[in-house]
Amino acid sequence: MKQFKIERPLDDIRQYLQEKIDNLTKPKGSLGLLEDIAMQTGWIQQTLNPKLKNPCHIVFAGDHGIAAEGVSPSPQEVTYQMIANFWDGGAGINFLARQHGFNLKIVDAGVNFDFKPEDPIIDKKIRKSTRNYLHEAAMTREEMDLAIERGAECAQSCFDEGCNIIGFGEMGITNTSSSSLWMACLTGIPLEKCIGAGCDHTGSIINHKYNVLKTAIENYKGDGSILDIMRYFGGYEMVMAVGAMLKAAELKMIVLVDGFIMTNCILLASKLNKEVLNYAIFGHQGDEAGHKLLLEYLGAKPILHLGLRLGEGTGALCAYPIIESALHMINEMNSFKQIQVTKYF
Amino acid sequence: MKQFKIERPLDDIRQYLQEKIDNLTKPKGSLGLLEDIAMQTGWIQQTLNPKLKNPCHIVFAGDHGIAAEGVSPSPQEVTYQMIANFWDGGAGINFLARQHGFNLKIVDAGVNFDFKPEDPIIDKKIRKSTRNYLHEAAMTREEMDLAIERGAECAQSCFDEGCNIIGFGEMGITNTSSSSLWMACLTGIPLEKCIGAGCDHTGSIINHKYNVLKTAIENYKGDGSILDIMRYFGGYEMVMAVGAMLKAAELKMIVLVDGFIMTNCILLASKLNKEVLNYAIFGHQGDEAGHKLLLEYLGAKPILHLGLRLGEGTGALCAYPIIESALHMINEMNSFKQIQVTKYF
Repeated sequence: MKQFKIERPLDDIRQYLQEKIDNLTKPKGSLGLLEDIAMQTGWIQQTLNPKLKNPCHIVFAGDHGIAAEGVSPSPQEVTYQMIANFWDGGAGINFLARQHGFNLKIVDAGVNFDFKPEDPIIDKKIRKSTRNYLHEAAMTREEMDLAIERGAECAQSCFDEGCNIIGFGEMGITNTSSSSLWMACLTGIPLEKCIGAGCDHTGSIINHKYNVLKTAIENYKGDGSILDIMRYFGGYEMVMAVGAMLKAAELKMIVLVDGFIMTNCILLASKLNKEVLNYAIFGHQGDEAGHKLLLEYLGAKPILHLGLRLGEGTGALCAYPIIESALHMINEMNSFKQIQVTKYF
Repeated sequence: MKQFKIERPLDDIRQYLQEKIDNLTKPKGSLGLLEDIAMQTGWIQQTLNPKLKNPCHIVFAGDHGIAAEGVSPSPQEVTYQMIANFWDGGAGINFLARQHGFNLKIVDAGVNFDFKPEDPIIDKKIRKSTRNYLHEAAMTREEMDLAIERGAECAQSCFDEGCNIIGFGEMGITNTSSSSLWMACLTGIPLEKCIGAGCDHTGSIINHKYNVLKTAIENYKGDGSILDIMRYFGGYEMVMAVGAMLKAAELKMIVLVDGFIMTNCILLASKLNKEVLNYAIFGHQGDEAGHKLLLEYLGAKPILHLGLRLGEGTGALCAYPIIESALHMINEMNSFKQIQVTKYF
């Protein structure tokens, strides 16, 4: 697999960032998470005046062979139908991308549909849907390597456009199932705590989903390595996101993580290279069971808690203006030296 | 006291709003709090296409006689110094008002300082600081009535400018003390659970603060009515905010509530007229002890949990883009009727 050289940002600047933040005209620490975000972005960018430039949001789309087992009440066709909705500008992610000035990129990582050459989609298709991991590996080693590489190309392309923050989202019916399996295998947290109803809150499907996933783990005969878990249970859109996250961190960009599925992608990326986490900002804690546990496992402080469970990157983009606020804070507030205010508490 | 006629918005529209929200191209309920906010704003504005217009943010500023008892480690002079910082554009509330296009209004409700006639402050001063409620009522009945009226004038003036959403914030050293007393007296929650360290997280002052406030309650000899509690322990900036909130609701505007102090103002307003709560959106749950309990008492779902404890309205304005997102959702998303997507879960 392609290797990534991700450097931990140099720590020297942290004390100067802290000094700057502590001397803004407010009680120390009183802007809470905004202060943490200002610190992290300044540290990543190695500057006391961090800036966000040309934000891009990538929606990686793909289908999953496991859909044949009825683990989701939604039919697989929704994946490509929703892509047409993205093009039309009428999906959840569209209004958020417009609101916050994101360049929205829809990537076909492995949708089970033949798009036309003129369709406005970034064609990185590995194959039309993964295989059914109840019986065999979702993808081959070669497909996985290719997905990682193509994900890295996506991040590089954003970087080349002058972007320094990428939002990560996905579209893929049944990809909460793959995510739950990655989480269970990579964290050791029992499967039943890693599983949720996906977008189905009727409860009709969850027992069946659990039994299928449990059987998939029992049937698994691989070597248990990170790479083997990734390809056996993963989706093309998920592996591609892992590659893009690793490349973004290598390029010292901010990785803006969405919900349960994207959090599993950064989990996997962090198992390959833990330094990637230094570049990650977690947009929100979603409503999917397991997301809270996974965020805790990663030591992540998500920005929002809005009970979202849509995916596409909606939770990441909803959180973006809070990151902007943090940067306005550190760049625009007066310090106690600039204006006559007694230091207060 | 001036009376306000606040109407509960008509309920008929709610089923149409729900139908519209449920038919947007996303699983039902999957945009969580955004859906609740879209429902509430549509209900308030009696339309399926709610809009935010000319947002204003008012910072009510005032000083408190209780400051003489050393309940805050910050000197009273910080109140007027921070007002100069607001004028200079360098305080926390400034970058947020700029970021989100708010018309920022700084109101002198009772600051212990003589501003010059040419200073850019809205002069609604009742008196230079309240009296010390350890020994006597903070304000007279007449002063309270005047503060309510002047607050209402502030809301009316925003309305006259075409505004339909007002953010409410404050500046006033020791006003967490007044707020804790209102909360304890109006909710029955024990004082020790209503009290926090204000902006002081060193812990040095909190025992002293508790003892002073406990003694203030013991010394209180009033009739225990809402109006008497309001004037005895309140600040001019707080009572003025109560008047402004009641008037804003009468004018069917959205009342965007900030942290602990402003939540106590809407608590008090709701004790005078419970319909005011229909118009309230709670920006955030702050870090001040007691705020969580108070929000629960009011049945409020705050938008953000960022560990803020600055005041000025910073938590309210940080939350504003999330309200905007909710309105983009209901106004811009495709419905399942508009585009060929199978209803999914």
